[in-house]
Amino acid sequence: MPIPPDPNFEQRIRRSFHQQGLMHTLGAKLTRVAAGEVHIDLPYDASLTQQDGYIHAGVLTTLADTASGYAAHTLMEVGARVLTVEFKMNFLAPATGAKFSARARVLKPGRTLTICACDVFAIKEENEKLVATMLATMFAVAA
Amino acid sequence: MPIPPDPNFEQRIRRSFHQQGLMHTLGAKLTRVAAGEVHIDLPYDASLTQQDGYIHAGVLTTLADTASGYAAHTLMEVGARVLTVEFKMNFLAPATGAKFSARARVLKPGRTLTICACDVFAIKEENEKLVATMLATMFAVAA
Amino acid sequence: MPIPPDPNFEQRIRRSFHQQGLMHTLGAKLTRVAAGEVHIDLPYDASLTQQDGYIHAGVLTTLADTASGYAAHTLMEVGARVLTVEFKMNFLAPATGAKFSARARVLKPGRTLTICACDVFAIKEENEKLVATMLATMFAVAA
Amino acid sequence: MPIPPDPNFEQRIRRSFHQQGLMHTLGAKLTRVAAGEVHIDLPYDASLTQQDGYIHAGVLTTLADTASGYAAHTLMEVGARVLTVEFKMNFLAPATGAKFSARARVLKPGRTLTICACDVFAIKEENEKLVATMLATMFAVAA
Repeated sequence: MPIPPDPNFEQRIRRSFHQQGLMHTLGAKLTRVAAGEVHIDLPYDASLTQQDGYIHAGVLTTLADTASGYAAHTLMEVGARVLTVEFKMNFLAPATGAKFSARARVLKPGRTLTICACDVFAIKEENEKLVATMLATMFAVAA
Repeated sequence: MPIPPDPNFEQRIRRSFHQQGLMHTLGAKLTRVAAGEVHIDLPYDASLTQQDGYIHAGVLTTLADTASGYAAHTLMEVGARVLTVEFKMNFLAPATGAKFSARARVLKPGRTLTICACDVFAIKEENEKLVATMLATMFAVAA
Repeated sequence: MPIPPDPNFEQRIRRSFHQQGLMHTLGAKLTRVAAGEVHIDLPYDASLTQQDGYIHAGVLTTLADTASGYAAHTLMEVGARVLTVEFKMNFLAPATGAKFSARARVLKPGRTLTICACDVFAIKEENEKLVATMLATMFAVAA
Repeated sequence: MPIPPDPNFEQRIRRSFHQQGLMHTLGAKLTRVAAGEVHIDLPYDASLTQQDGYIHAGVLTTLADTASGYAAHTLMEVGARVLTVEFKMNFLAPATGAKFSARARVLKPGRTLTICACDVFAIKEENEKLVATMLATMFAVAA
């Protein structure tokens, strides 16, 4: 993984995360910010469910998109903004758990485009289960 | 488009939609339920934004996933449940608007798998702009 | 659709197509080149099959990728090169037919990124059937 | 990874591979067949190129699709057939090399649907470089 051009990338990303209205609404937490790697956790809440009481696929996607965007962001120039070009998400197992964790990593950094992968886990007591996986393309808007 | 096997598909889908905790949290509304076609609308709200104040990509994806799932659901057997296998979403333009509308249609119905497409529009006064598009695979769990 | 910056886009694309070793190997033909729209046709051949004698999914994908890339290329600056960033393809029906046609169109042109959709049809006598559909992201490398 | 229900899965897959007209046309070789894992290699050939002389993205996709389908197939019931539902492929680096290797693994096996990932490497002398990655959904047609 290349060295982040902005030595204060963690502070920059934490500030950006706290400006996201949706992260507050969902109750999501930024649990890891490292070069090319970002994790976001979310406790289960009945306000975030689909019709069968599971966490909505769209919520897991939101976490994975946000974690992927910030993972790409850790390696971008000072002042650059990150936009999601596209992503694809596969759902592998029912999302039952007390907590969910989206763990994104950069597969290929680039000046303009950065490709990321993100695994989403459902956590119940000591057990972690892979419930979804994303492949995403992020775009750096130069400062 | 085939004839829906369940003549009460609209009622079934409206009931299911109202059981989704997340749809209440987002403030989403089911605006069209027809054979192979479902629309969901959402007014802008600051509680649903990313760091620049735009509607979060994850919210648009949630609408598109939900609309696609129900579009597939309109053509399923009585008692069948619908699960999202996977989707891919491309973001085409900044999502600025007072309202957003996800409009899904079935491309190919099937006994087990149904393929859907969904366009997402941002609406400002009389203007509609295509801001994202989804291609999704839905799974019917038999009753 | 915007006006192609290169008035000779058709000639440029036809020349590029003929430089593709693979298009000769497959026996593919460029049947339409218009602003934001490209079609490629291919006759069935036993040398292009999977294990059941149908045209290989990879061949249909190759046609769709190539048609999408050139559809994006029609709107690019003189001298720009086009690269595939990514695509997603859904297979909707068995690809049985005497001929196949990949028909791509630009959904959203852009200076750097262009988003395309491509439908692939299987043709038997007078009958056309939609057998696959692609959503693709193309990148313009400036001259 | 579960135990393959068919103890002769390798023989079954090797036979199927040799029935693919396209694998002969491309000059592809099945280099690894294990439970939930299949590798396919291909030497560079000018008959498989795009306009700049690189291996065509569609060829890499064909290898990845075929390797993913067979990786899923290793875990399927005797007599089951495998169909590609859909895939998404990201291209990470220019595909320059003397040889290419598509290495697929099952992420999540299932009775009906199996989700696979496949990495594609370009190989030059002793050097391997990740040039593309696929996420795919495969369908088992029961015997």
